[in-house]
Amino acid sequence: MSVFLGEVNKIRFRIISVGKIREKFYRQGIDEYTKRLGAYTKIEMFEGLEERLNPNASPKEIERLLNKEGAKILNLVDQDDILAVLDIEGKMLSSREFADYIDGLKHSGKTRVNFVIGASYGVAPEIKKRADVRISFSPLTFPHQMAVLILTEQLYRAFKILQGEPYHK
Amino acid sequence: MSVFLGEVNKIRFRIISVGKIREKFYRQGIDEYTKRLGAYTKIEMFEGLEERLNPNASPKEIERLLNKEGAKILNLVDQDDILAVLDIEGKMLSSREFADYIDGLKHSGKTRVNFVIGASYGVAPEIKKRADVRISFSPLTFPHQMAVLILTEQLYRAFKILQGEPYHK
Repeated sequence: MSVFLGEVNKIRFRIISVGKIREKFYRQGIDEYTKRLGAYTKIEMFEGLEERLNPNASPKEIERLLNKEGAKILNLVDQDDILAVLDIEGKMLSSREFADYIDGLKHSGKTRVNFVIGASYGVAPEIKKRADVRISFSPLTFPHQMAVLILTEQLYRAFKILQGEPYHK
Repeated sequence: MSVFLGEVNKIRFRIISVGKIREKFYRQGIDEYTKRLGAYTKIEMFEGLEERLNPNASPKEIERLLNKEGAKILNLVDQDDILAVLDIEGKMLSSREFADYIDGLKHSGKTRVNFVIGASYGVAPEIKKRADVRISFSPLTFPHQMAVLILTEQLYRAFKILQGEPYHK
């Protein structure tokens, strides 16, 4: 088991949240799971890449905003990195399947995976195109802060599953 | 719109979480959405109905525990109440579909809906049998505290959707 986790541990994990984590309870929850994840891996967190937009923005303005945000995301991601985008239209996985995805990364020959979570308007088409995988947590629409919280909890759960450790539902 | 919400507002909402909300950040998040929901409806919250069990319990002991918890749940629920159980094997809905379900309750002739969220071992078969609807938030396994947080957020989102008010993703 430890050899196995040793291999998964070669992968570095990054969370890129386009929106800021504004609410204190979300921040504390994300910090808590990130701290627990410290037993298995290190999580690098980027947030607040979002561009300002007035609430009555036209589709054209939204497109321009997404492209600007997309350029910032791509600027953070190396060509050799894995890009996993959270997208309501992506593939839904069980926690076991998500853990298997994390486990499978050790065969990818890559050393870093970036999970991208869009803000109010999702992510630019070029980010979806660059994505190695698109994952959906639910057909429900979640606030981006909730999505980051779920992601950190599921990463923690994945490591517990791969380690064969018990984890209460 | 206000006439319409007036009708939905006749329904009283209850959340029955078998497990306790133990972590402070989950508590604060649930309190925050419950407070925001106060603009539309009142949420009654029950929690901590769970029975103690040693971690190496046999399937027989787990069954007994679920039945005991089930009896406590049924004790809270009137015969005339709607019982909605959160169940990973239930039906998945979009946020819009969940809002439509909430809206549809006004035609049910009922005055109270109970959302039940099980603890570590789910809920007893008799609760699933009594359930009017079984809803799944995701194929992912969430901690019960996360499920309660998501439920309060989605209820708040549902009222915003039904009211035609903007809500940031």
